[in-house]
Amino acid sequence: MTKHDYSLVPAKVEQAIDLMDKLGIDAWLTFAQKTGDSGGDYIYPYIYGLRDLARGLLLLTRQGERIAIVHGLDAALPPSTGVWNEVVVHNGGDMGRRLVEALTRLQPKTLAINYARRNPKADGLTHGNYLWLTDALADTPFLERLVSGEALVTQLRGRKLPGEVALIRAAVAATEEIFAAVNGFLRPGLTGRAIYDFILAEVDRRGWETSWSRDHCPIVTVGPVAPIGHTAPGAVPLQPGWLLQIDFGVKLNGYCADFQRMWYLLDEGESEPPPEVQRLFVTVRRGVDTIVEHLRPSVPTWQPAAAAREVLTGAGYPPFLYGVGHQLGRATHDGGPGLALRGEGDPEFFIEAGNVFTAEGLETFIEGRGWISLEENVLVTPDGPELLTTRQTELWLVG
Amino acid sequence: MTKHDYSLVPAKVEQAIDLMDKLGIDAWLTFAQKTGDSGGDYIYPYIYGLRDLARGLLLLTRQGERIAIVHGLDAALPPSTGVWNEVVVHNGGDMGRRLVEALTRLQPKTLAINYARRNPKADGLTHGNYLWLTDALADTPFLERLVSGEALVTQLRGRKLPGEVALIRAAVAATEEIFAAVNGFLRPGLTGRAIYDFILAEVDRRGWETSWSRDHCPIVTVGPVAPIGHTAPGAVPLQPGWLLQIDFGVKLNGYCADFQRMWYLLDEGESEPPPEVQRLFVTVRRGVDTIVEHLRPSVPTWQPAAAAREVLTGAGYPPFLYGVGHQLGRATHDGGPGLALRGEGDPEFFIEAGNVFTAEGLETFIEGRGWISLEENVLVTPDGPELLTTRQTELWLVG
Repeated sequence: MTKHDYSLVPAKVEQAIDLMDKLGIDAWLTFAQKTGDSGGDYIYPYIYGLRDLARGLLLLTRQGERIAIVHGLDAALPPSTGVWNEVVVHNGGDMGRRLVEALTRLQPKTLAINYARRNPKADGLTHGNYLWLTDALADTPFLERLVSGEALVTQLRGRKLPGEVALIRAAVAATEEIFAAVNGFLRPGLTGRAIYDFILAEVDRRGWETSWSRDHCPIVTVGPVAPIGHTAPGAVPLQPGWLLQIDFGVKLNGYCADFQRMWYLLDEGESEPPPEVQRLFVTVRRGVDTIVEHLRPSVPTWQPAAAAREVLTGAGYPPFLYGVGHQLGRATHDGGPGLALRGEGDPEFFIEAGNVFTAEGLETFIEGRGWISLEENVLVTPDGPELLTTRQTELWLVG
Repeated sequence: MTKHDYSLVPAKVEQAIDLMDKLGIDAWLTFAQKTGDSGGDYIYPYIYGLRDLARGLLLLTRQGERIAIVHGLDAALPPSTGVWNEVVVHNGGDMGRRLVEALTRLQPKTLAINYARRNPKADGLTHGNYLWLTDALADTPFLERLVSGEALVTQLRGRKLPGEVALIRAAVAATEEIFAAVNGFLRPGLTGRAIYDFILAEVDRRGWETSWSRDHCPIVTVGPVAPIGHTAPGAVPLQPGWLLQIDFGVKLNGYCADFQRMWYLLDEGESEPPPEVQRLFVTVRRGVDTIVEHLRPSVPTWQPAAAAREVLTGAGYPPFLYGVGHQLGRATHDGGPGLALRGEGDPEFFIEAGNVFTAEGLETFIEGRGWISLEENVLVTPDGPELLTTRQTELWLVG
């Protein structure tokens, strides 16, 4: 059974209060709402995550007050977490009044809410809820004290606690277990679709989930025929002399892994990949290692891509177009901005200790063979990068 | 393999344009964004649903223009759908300028965006994206022409096309297949957890998905010990004389079923449930039938609950607290407001032809036995309700 691990909620709430203090935020308001598609802020599972039935509000202060304003139907939920030291019950219509009463008592000078202009992953407040809030705070001084919680939410999602890193490690180990099973299964003649089906059957047999939507997880890229990227698995059978790339991840206890592995199908008489395949693999490997090497606190997020691009162009390959990584966590694309080159006018972001990134991409094509790319998962420690995946050091061979 | 069925997108776009004309909306703007937790409007899979890599905009007009403003990386996606008759490519920084150019050409008098004060399921625009939009439209006449798309989105989600109803029927049939397997599996001594595990194994074996998060789908309520509702499956074994309730649904091709079935475990010497169990089952059955009977166009959404409540209280049972249904579709809780009693100051909503509702609830407890409740899935046709599920007419017996 896969499910969220609520045991991390108390520590994330502690972390939030600590970050509020550092960022000078007096109070922080999050709408608590049914999870799933009917609303629900992305940050909600980090600080609450319970399956409440009706709309509610979560209010934290830098002094450490933790106030859950919930509907009567849900009144039993917050105490079950041990996190909320005050539960205020509303009846639907008076939720705004209950909020104003709490704020009047607390007198915060700033009240952060979850909208963001730069980081869409910190932009979990809907505009309709924003309008509800401005109505509720009309004729109070708090309306003028609303500020964006972008930095707070970005850091809270992005800076993983040891317990979160442990869950990502477990997801990585699970993904490696599936890749090992794939290694025993591969043979020439298999279609991308058959490989895709095999992987999902292995996932289901263990009662696990895929890191992203299973209609394109795994992504199986067979030989020189399929376009790289987010494509459906093909009907073309694997042929000798072709490359096979699989991009895949398992989600365990709500936390994701996401990495890529590469195979080469030996042709008749071959005992190793041909030189041009070998040379590209080594170059891409060097490029991804370069990305990993740049995953250090305070490095601008565009720098790994710039450095890796030089590795490829320096070896005579074309420059790549896409980003070279993204944060990993509850979502496959988690935390803040990814590792992309910086466009004109784009804001600058910096890598932080506690971030978990993929280091990936550099997709490069060899005529008649297919695509080569690699992906590893990396924890940024205060001292530099720590690989969470077992680095693929050479092409895995089939046949 | 479960995946979204994009084949319905062209018909939903047609429906949207038709609804815009009826509602007097000249143009409608939706942010197209990566699906998953990093944003993405709930309505996005209905009118687009492609896995674009970067932020984009979808613009429909009541004259039938369909304009996709997408990043260069995604330029190949919209033409693949056959829906968009104009693809405008932006480079990130100039997305706002491209939008203003299109609006200047189209001159809409109203421009609907996806925020909602009443229906959270139509409130898919984040406040950060709203701010981006007001920046982009500053110094243009269009800033003053923004209106809420609440009615449009509510009706577009809520009024199912025949193709959508067919997918829900398929999900219902799949769910009934699993319930039939459960019937062959049940015996005294099984724990709620064992039943939960069996159902998920049956789902996984077929490569299906559950309608809601599998950490509480199915909900298995065993005898008089477990609290009803969204609870984790228990460790208590099924005993003779107890009731068993399972709330469950399969999601197929992106559309959900969600209904409940009831069992009674015969005690020694019994060949049928005892009279008090029988009487409650018949009453709840009558209550749910009453809900179904009220699922007709133009009936206020609070009326089924009021009518069903009378059935229960009329038979001497306590009134129930919860709602008696919700819409069903891509989400288990879909479309607009559910079938709940109307609180003071709550807005009034009406049932519409094409809505698919659950008719459910009326959870009532019998000391020493457990809970009885039922749930069916119902299509609202212009002529009245049409059951999509095979109505459970009597308690299923075990032992």
